[in-house]
Amino acid sequence: MADDLTSKGRNIVEPSILAGFQEFLPKEQMLFTHMLDTIRYSFESYGFIPLDTPVLEKSQVLLAKSGGDTAKQVYRFEKGDTDMAMRFDLTVPLARYVAQHYDSLVFPFRRYHIGKVYRGERPQKGRFREFYQCDIDIIGNETLSLLNEAELVSVINSTFGALDIGDFTVMINNRKLLGGFFSSLGIDDPTEALRAVDKLDKIGGDKVLEELVSQGVSAEAAGKIIALTSVCGAPETVFKKLDEMGLAGCSAAFDEGLSELKTVCAYIKKFGVPEKRFCVDLKIARGLDYYTGTVYETKLNDYPELGSICSGGRYDDLASNYTKKKLPGVGISIGLSRLFYQLNAAGIISIDGRSTPSEVLLIPMGDTLDYTLDAAEKIRSEGIPCETYMGEGKLGKKFGYADKLGIPYAVVIGEDERDSGIITVKDMRTGEQRSYESASEFARTIKKV
Amino acid sequence: MADDLTSKGRNIVEPSILAGFQEFLPKEQMLFTHMLDTIRYSFESYGFIPLDTPVLEKSQVLLAKSGGDTAKQVYRFEKGDTDMAMRFDLTVPLARYVAQHYDSLVFPFRRYHIGKVYRGERPQKGRFREFYQCDIDIIGNETLSLLNEAELVSVINSTFGALDIGDFTVMINNRKLLGGFFSSLGIDDPTEALRAVDKLDKIGGDKVLEELVSQGVSAEAAGKIIALTSVCGAPETVFKKLDEMGLAGCSAAFDEGLSELKTVCAYIKKFGVPEKRFCVDLKIARGLDYYTGTVYETKLNDYPELGSICSGGRYDDLASNYTKKKLPGVGISIGLSRLFYQLNAAGIISIDGRSTPSEVLLIPMGDTLDYTLDAAEKIRSEGIPCETYMGEGKLGKKFGYADKLGIPYAVVIGEDERDSGIITVKDMRTGEQRSYESASEFARTIKKV
Repeated sequence: MADDLTSKGRNIVEPSILAGFQEFLPKEQMLFTHMLDTIRYSFESYGFIPLDTPVLEKSQVLLAKSGGDTAKQVYRFEKGDTDMAMRFDLTVPLARYVAQHYDSLVFPFRRYHIGKVYRGERPQKGRFREFYQCDIDIIGNETLSLLNEAELVSVINSTFGALDIGDFTVMINNRKLLGGFFSSLGIDDPTEALRAVDKLDKIGGDKVLEELVSQGVSAEAAGKIIALTSVCGAPETVFKKLDEMGLAGCSAAFDEGLSELKTVCAYIKKFGVPEKRFCVDLKIARGLDYYTGTVYETKLNDYPELGSICSGGRYDDLASNYTKKKLPGVGISIGLSRLFYQLNAAGIISIDGRSTPSEVLLIPMGDTLDYTLDAAEKIRSEGIPCETYMGEGKLGKKFGYADKLGIPYAVVIGEDERDSGIITVKDMRTGEQRSYESASEFARTIKKV
Repeated sequence: MADDLTSKGRNIVEPSILAGFQEFLPKEQMLFTHMLDTIRYSFESYGFIPLDTPVLEKSQVLLAKSGGDTAKQVYRFEKGDTDMAMRFDLTVPLARYVAQHYDSLVFPFRRYHIGKVYRGERPQKGRFREFYQCDIDIIGNETLSLLNEAELVSVINSTFGALDIGDFTVMINNRKLLGGFFSSLGIDDPTEALRAVDKLDKIGGDKVLEELVSQGVSAEAAGKIIALTSVCGAPETVFKKLDEMGLAGCSAAFDEGLSELKTVCAYIKKFGVPEKRFCVDLKIARGLDYYTGTVYETKLNDYPELGSICSGGRYDDLASNYTKKKLPGVGISIGLSRLFYQLNAAGIISIDGRSTPSEVLLIPMGDTLDYTLDAAEKIRSEGIPCETYMGEGKLGKKFGYADKLGIPYAVVIGEDERDSGIITVKDMRTGEQRSYESASEFARTIKKV
């Protein structure tokens, strides 16, 4: 159809993006960028080093360990005779990086990485095939003190405090404790049992017990599993409860895990994390093949249904696929794309702020362009983002531009303003007008707000 | 060989990245990140809106226009029955975005986009297959004032001023002027001729003339081409020279282009851009099929051999592949990955700064952990990135950690410090020690530096 042809006679292609991918309109983007910045500055305040690795890696390197679901989800392809893949997390590239640059790095190596990762999952609500991860990890050379595990709880506390999205709790457990307990029951691979346990809050103890028994766990063992994994609360309460349950000595791994858990909780207090911000939750497991000690999840107290908004843990051997060096580490990750979607859907954040960094719109009227551009430069030099409206049209259209973008201040500069040097500023939110001696004085005033 | 097996009996995979890809060690990364931030804050100070589009797009959409070299370089693949490709620039995704979200955007739409793009070029020194572009564009709806073209020169001036990499000059030309001139000589497609002209600085006028003639251009026309494209200098000088050459009226397009060029240069002055920072250079052409008016290149005065470090121009129809709406725009782009490589290779920047955001390393000695962690928190709350050394070992090793990372201040906190509250700070660069009443007082002092 002629209608679908461009001016150059080409077909018009319907503009759209791939299913499962995401992009924002300016107002959402401004808020998302602000949250990314908040996370970044929190990470940097603890001295984490920025890292940026290629999105594309050699398939052989990236997939050295993976199998199963991950491998199926990876975007992998060949170009020429090179087999390459897009990163599906930031941990495997970190392992590769640390092994590759081992001789040039200073340990403990504390890095943050905020970047996009790719997984060709079946698209569903709030799950994206391209999404941001915000990771920090601390990698030791041979050894790494448990203090680092406590510090990450302090980082979570500062970061989510700064994000200001409501009260939250970091829930802590220890994989050795959990693994030791299951092996004392004769269960060496507790993956399936833990999948049942994970539903405790949703379906209740009775149903979980039923499911465990249907897995072949004895009724007695199933009862013990539920008794242990239901324990959750302030560290002292949990440790007292465990004493009462008489589990000490059930296996060496259990005892070691419990001892680590006690130490980490004591350290977290030393870091000044308020007691209400963390608890021990003995059902937290994370991916069992990966973590080897402390594990974390974080929930929003008023929105537990969102699931964990920040997770991580301790691993004893980060880069075993790439080096024989022993590199223990601990890390956490925030999946911001999904979290942002959830926060918005739950009404915890609202997309009603500005659509632009501009705080001021200058509108020249009459022969005042030189003066206006000079005023814009003065405002900018005080650190206030500022733009000048450069199109034609009526004043209403120009104010409309400021209004639609949510620019808080508009300043019309006519010949009177140019001649007197006094500027009159309209607060677009209240309609109030106020005069200032100069553009610089105005900029310094709003800088203080 | 048993030697190449991991502890789990797997083969160790040699850690490496793909040819033509790039990643940094911490010290380089800190500087690169700082440069990205500088560019970003400069763009935001002019009210450009952040934008972030997917790295992967539908091939049909992304490659609606492209052919030739670009299409060959694109990373394109299928997953399931979806044909997808990685973006090779930020302009095509912008065109798609503006067409797709036209009804939700406010025009003129001023956006910046800093992100990675992908081109499977033959790897060569300083050319990368994954690289950062830092783009700004202003898109109008139907019309867009020439003032916007002048404003981008002001943005280039501010941005490279802030980057502080030496004196630079923005060179300006106009495609209509150039196209009109060539068509007056009977050359409708001047692509090949301009490729010869591009070598003027390198091989000189005589050789270029030879090449033009070998292309079939008459000796007379070739002489005129060299006479025109050799013109370069301050706007007034160039316009005077053009008057003397008597080219006015050689074609309507030439006259229109000259008039635009005069207007844009006059506006640039109104924006307060110093005269030494821009000139007219009549051989600047950029991709001729793309730009339709003003074109820019930017050179470092002392390193012209680096080529253009920031280029762009005006286009009359951004999104003609995706919409019948007429969306004129103007944009510039900084290819930071290549520029960073060049600046480093030329010794214009030196990678000798810090390897970490941390400005302070606290070292607890004896029973002072609580006190030290509290001091760290106080320093952090003044906005100073700070970390606590948490490993075992001798004091020398701990100072060595600060030294190797380039952390400027180290503070040993022993029991005396804990009891008196006075802290003694070692400046790692000078070896000087100074005492402060409290951690907060110290933090406030270095904040002012």
